[in-house]
Order: sequence, then structure tokens, then C-alpha cells
Amino acid sequence: MAAKLTSTSNSVLLQNPNRNHLSVPNVTSGAASFPHFTAKIKPFSIRCAATSTAPTTSFQAQIQDSDDRVFNFAAGPATLPAHVIKKAQDELYEWRGSGMSVMEMSHRGKEFLSIIQKAESDLRTLLNIPEDYAVLFLQGGATTQFAAIPLNLCKPDDPVDYLVTGSWGDKAFKEAQKYCKPKVIWSGKSEKYTKIPSFDGLEQSPDAKYFHICANETIHGVEFKDYLTPRNGILIADMSSNFCSKPVDVTKFGLIYAGAQKNVGPCGVTIVIVRKGLIGNAQAITPVMLDYKTHVDNNSLYNTPPSFCIYMCGLVFEDLLAQGGLKEVEKKNKKKAELLYNAIDESNGFYRCPVDRSVRSLMNVPFTLERSDVEAEFIKEAAKEKMVQLKGHRSVGGMRASIYNAMPLAGVEKLVAFMKDFQARHT
Amino acid sequence: MAAKLTSTSNSVLLQNPNRNHLSVPNVTSGAASFPHFTAKIKPFSIRCAATSTAPTTSFQAQIQDSDDRVFNFAAGPATLPAHVIKKAQDELYEWRGSGMSVMEMSHRGKEFLSIIQKAESDLRTLLNIPEDYAVLFLQGGATTQFAAIPLNLCKPDDPVDYLVTGSWGDKAFKEAQKYCKPKVIWSGKSEKYTKIPSFDGLEQSPDAKYFHICANETIHGVEFKDYLTPRNGILIADMSSNFCSKPVDVTKFGLIYAGAQKNVGPCGVTIVIVRKGLIGNAQAITPVMLDYKTHVDNNSLYNTPPSFCIYMCGLVFEDLLAQGGLKEVEKKNKKKAELLYNAIDESNGFYRCPVDRSVRSLMNVPFTLERSDVEAEFIKEAAKEKMVQLKGHRSVGGMRASIYNAMPLAGVEKLVAFMKDFQARHT
Repeated sequence: MAAKLTSTSNSVLLQNPNRNHLSVPNVTSGAASFPHFTAKIKPFSIRCAATSTAPTTSFQAQIQDSDDRVFNFAAGPATLPAHVIKKAQDELYEWRGSGMSVMEMSHRGKEFLSIIQKAESDLRTLLNIPEDYAVLFLQGGATTQFAAIPLNLCKPDDPVDYLVTGSWGDKAFKEAQKYCKPKVIWSGKSEKYTKIPSFDGLEQSPDAKYFHICANETIHGVEFKDYLTPRNGILIADMSSNFCSKPVDVTKFGLIYAGAQKNVGPCGVTIVIVRKGLIGNAQAITPVMLDYKTHVDNNSLYNTPPSFCIYMCGLVFEDLLAQGGLKEVEKKNKKKAELLYNAIDESNGFYRCPVDRSVRSLMNVPFTLERSDVEAEFIKEAAKEKMVQLKGHRSVGGMRASIYNAMPLAGVEKLVAFMKDFQARHT
Repeated sequence: MAAKLTSTSNSVLLQNPNRNHLSVPNVTSGAASFPHFTAKIKPFSIRCAATSTAPTTSFQAQIQDSDDRVFNFAAGPATLPAHVIKKAQDELYEWRGSGMSVMEMSHRGKEFLSIIQKAESDLRTLLNIPEDYAVLFLQGGATTQFAAIPLNLCKPDDPVDYLVTGSWGDKAFKEAQKYCKPKVIWSGKSEKYTKIPSFDGLEQSPDAKYFHICANETIHGVEFKDYLTPRNGILIADMSSNFCSKPVDVTKFGLIYAGAQKNVGPCGVTIVIVRKGLIGNAQAITPVMLDYKTHVDNNSLYNTPPSFCIYMCGLVFEDLLAQGGLKEVEKKNKKKAELLYNAIDESNGFYRCPVDRSVRSLMNVPFTLERSDVEAEFIKEAAKEKMVQLKGHRSVGGMRASIYNAMPLAGVEKLVAFMKDFQARHT
């Protein structure tokens, strides 16, 4: 179903079985808007070989709503579904007959309670979260959780294991050093964070209180495809950048946490899903706001929560359910990622993704150019074509395309067409 | 300039020098919408004795924008200026030609940097904040600061002083017990938090590292009208509920902190203004996200900030400057508070405010009814008249009208008219 793009020297052949000649697909209009390239440098043409008249899906309807918007490949805060923002815009001034904006609602009033309860309920449905897990909407980002996790789950002398597959896992490990005895049982640093090890060979600490991973490393584009069962049974995952991008068996985890600003909302809210049996033994030095018991006992309303951000997450959860749930979302994400990785791998080395193929992220796609001297030009030209935030993280360099849930297929198609064109003009 | 309402048995005389008979003022339409009272219980009439044709101010223009909205007296999250929400609504889908919503912007991109930098700059102008103070936009609410303050400014054995004038001051004190040796040098608890003591008689601890107050107690309606200079010179104030409601001499403080959700924005962002010289000595157990140095060194961008909330604060700061700054804002707040307190004090005991007159809050006005049996009726009828969230905090009971910056004068006028009518029908 994915639009298949094949590059033959200076021409790009677009094969999109979902679209016909009459309804011009976004990617064509996108690619066709590169005439200054063809004029200035080399001939460049796009032919649409669409053959199917399959009905327009809601996903495509969404794309067509984004005419005046750029394709935003930022790693987070990141693109949100255009129609979700439209809905928020429609009811920003006055929410559903309440006479006020969501931003103005008392967090203890019936209107906001209905919002947060529905958000939690929809998230429970999406991820099939059992009743013995609490769902919390907190503040402070995943970075605050780096401290909260050991403070809640360990005593100062407790050993814990960290598997470090990128910068975020490393940061989590370092923060834990303040509150317990964490051990890095494997690190991908020497290989520039491009791998995830086989679980069989890992030497876990016999008495480790938990086992921590970063399920998707946003900066390095390394993603776990399956999960180990640690010796003590308590697997903890930072899912900030792949949360709700695919189904997850929550029961395999003691705790899952995620900043919302990649796949499920704006920044300013952090979601924690924690097995209730793990709560209630925080260290005495734990700030009351970092103690999970505080928030579990008060349904995330101990103090004023980031209510507008929670509301936005709720709208996104509704949308993910309307798309058919996370299995359907995963299919779309796989299609987009496949398209982009194929373009890289089929570029004869013009583009390179350093990540081990078996653990490449569906969300964050880092790549470099063989000719590093034209990387700045690549970014600049892409921005002119309304594809922004493609620059790689400052610690890594190169390019990075973040293609979260809300990135339309058309955005990836346009990027791939541009990449092929750019390559044709620079080889 | 305020609409003066005088009650003569069953009739309410509305004297509004700013408005004439032709342009029907909001308060009249509000009060006139109580016909079911007059029909069911007692005759009730309103006459408008407006005599002036003074030009409409921007403040009044704002009021007229709020036709489909309620008057929201919530203590926070609270009412925001209607035209500020309209502006946010206008640009929610696509911010000023950027091709994206503010919610989608990379926090390190030039668009968001321009937003946060302008917000900080405008706040510095509003409060005349000197360069040797840092301005931080953080997460976690004032409750997180209850821990961050002692963690940053004390060692575990350091004495500190807390002056407790209400529930929030008490919570701050209790959290500090985890990280230093705080002492309550005065508490208003035995008098139900209705007073602030004379500063002369306070016995400060000789070696206290700082002196903590809550500048305005949201629940009890007790507000400092001036500030003491502590022995060690480091005064710390929780200004959550009166931040930017009046001018403040920042140089009198070591640190000021405030949740935004009362006077300057939606919930989800906490503003800290701290003398730079106090930073850099956090206890080793301080979570990196609670260490002020982390945020000062990174201009509040160490990790992803609550960007949409910061943007909203920026719009409010612009509006406060456009109103003429905090001196003008204070005048309006005084006018509103005077109107409401006068209505209470002139009710022959039907309404009562328990707070010592010299320290009554301009922001939060708690009051009880002599006939506590009709309090629920009062709240219910007010809600029918589109005046909501008037119920007092669960720990105090009675009523509370929060009349922050964004509460229009018309809202207080309508409340006062309703109070007089309600009284007439229940005495």
C-alpha cells in the first residue's frame, strides 16, 4: 500500500496504488514544487503511476487538512494531528457549553474531571492497561522520572540494572546514582549507540530491584523490538518517544513512563503507568510531588495538574482509537518507516543510517550524507520546501527525521522524493 | 468610577457613572436576568442611574467580548482575559506563518525561542526585575518548589524560618522538614488563618538561611500588604495567587515563585524569580530537575519546557503591559475588591468575611452567610446566573470569590447585585 518511489538517475517514479491520476496526491504536488531545482541544476520529473481508486481513508482526509502547514520532522515537541488541533481550536474559547476555556477550568470541577477521566479511560483501552496498574498524568518530563523511579522503588543501597542504548538511558542511569546503586550492565556507547544486545548474554545483578531500558532512543534512533523479562520481574521503560506508536503488553512492565510531546500530546505532561503493588515505599527524602503514592491516592489531582495538556492528550487518544487502535497505528508507522529506510538503503551510500537494521526505530530516523559538505544545503532546501526540523541532534550531527504517529504518510513521501532529487543533483 | 450598587429593601439602585442608558451595561443585563427571583419571591427592580459618557476603555472592551462566557470565580485554574484566549484561538492552528501550532514547535527552534525570550523580557519589564535575578519557567507547581527551595538554599542542618498565615504556608513548612530545620515562628492557625502578625514582634532564628512567607493565601484570603526585611536578608515568597496583580519590589526578595494559573496563564508552568547569587549549592540529593542551576544554565530549556503554557503567559504579559503595567492593574484590582468587601460589610451581617480588614486579599474573598442553611442555594442560584465556582475551599466552607486580574469589573458588579438580591429575599 505504501507509495513506492524508485529513482532512475534523474527521474523519480512514484507508484502509489492508493491514488489515481485525477486526485493529485500531496506527494506529487510536494515534489512538483521543486521546479527551481530542475530549472537550475538537472532535469527532474515525477510520474504518478497510481492505478487504484481505493476509497479515501480518515488518514488521508487528515492529510488534506494540512495545506497551510509544514511537514514538521521535529523530535519533540512534534507534529500533532491537524484535525486534532482544529478541534482544540474550535473549542478553545468555550468548551462544549461550559462557558469557559479548558485552560480556565477548576481542576476539581465536573467539566475537567470528565476530561481527565475520559483521557485515562481511553488510554487504558488503547494499551489494554489492567486495573492493578495506575495511570498518572504528571509534570516535569521524563527527566524528573529519572529521579522519581529510584526514589520510589529503591533504598539507597539497593542495586539496580540499566541497559544503556543511547543518551537518554545514560542520563537516567546518572540521575539514579544519587538515590541507589545503579549498574550499567551493557552500554552501546563504544559503538555510538547503534545496537541493542542479545538479552541472553546479559549479566543481570542478582538482587537488582529493577531493570531499566529506554524503549526508543530519540537521538540515536534505536528501538527495542521485544522485551526481556528481568530476573526480578520489574522491567522499567522510558517510552517517551514510542509511547502509543504500537501495541505494548503492559503486564511485562513494572513501570512505563513517557513525556507526551512525541506521539500523544503537547509538552508539559508526563504519563506514568505503574503497577500499584510497587508504590508506597518511597525514600524519606522524596519530594511529595515525586512520590507516586501522592498522585495515585489523588488521581493525579494532588495539586493543580497540567490540565490543558491532559485535555490535548485526551483528544489524541480519541483519535488513535478512532483510527482502529494501536495495531492500525503501528501498520501506518511501519509503512512510513519502511519507505524512508528503503530510500536510505537504496541510495548507493549517498544516505546512510548507522543503526543496526534489526533495531531501527519506527519513530526517529537518523541518517548522514556521504557528502557531509552538502548537509547544510540539504536542510536549507528541505526547509524551503516546507519540510522542517530535519537537522540531527547536536550530539550526533547529520540528519534526523522524526516520523511519529501524527506525521502523515504524505510527509514521508515528500521527504523521500526530495531526498532522491537532492541525490540526483549531488552525485 | 466603579458601578455603585445600593440596596434599598427590595430594590437595587445601580449607579454606574461610566455608562449611559443607551449602551446597556453588562451588570444591568446580568442583574436584570434575575426575573425568576422577582416573580417567585419578592419584587426586585434595577434602575440604571448612569450619568457619564466616558469613553470605553480597553478593559470594558474586553468585557463585551465575553457574552457567551460565564463569570468564573475559581481559585485557579482561573479565568483568563477573554481577548487573550481569542488571540490564542486565532493562532492555535498555525502560529504567525510558522506552518505549525505553538504546541508542535521544537523548544530549540527560533520560533519558540522568540516566544520564551519575549515572555521573559516582558515579565522583567512588568516587575522591573534586575539583571542579577534569573527568571525561570518550570514545571510541577508551587508544591514542587516547597522542596526545591530548601534543597537549593540549605544544608540538612540549616535553620530556616516560616511564617504560616494559611494552608499553603503550612504545606511549604512541612515539605521543608525533609531537607533542613524549618521553624514556624508564627502561625495563624489558632485564629483560623485570618491575620498577619506585626513584623516587629517576630522572633527570627539568628542563623536562619531564609525567611519564607506565602504572600497571598488563596484558601483563606489573607494577603501581605508590605514585607519585612529578615535578619539574613533572604525573604522568600510564594506569590502564586497574587503574582503580577500589583507592583512588587523584587529586590526585597531572595526568591519569588508562583504557579501561573491564577493571574498570568494556564496551569502547567511555575515561574521562579531568584537572585543568581543564591544558586549553585544544591544538596547532593537534589533531583536535577529541582536544581535551579540546571535551569539557569540552560535558560529554562534543559529539557522540554511546558511550551504552550509559557506562550500563554507571554500573551498575558503583553496584555498587562498594554493595560499600562502593574500599577494600573492594581487600581482595577482594588476597585473590584472594594466593591465586593463593601457589599459584605454593608450587609448588616448577612454576609461576613472573617479576615482581618488590614490584610484582606485583593484576589481571594472568602465569606460566609449568616444563614448557613441557604449557602447551597446561594451557590446554585449564582451558577444559574452564570457566576460559577463560588463555593469555598473544602477545608474552610462558605463562599469564596476569586477575582484575579482577568475577572472583569462587570463580573464583580453582577455578583454584588446578585448578593443584594439574594439577601433581600432571605431576610
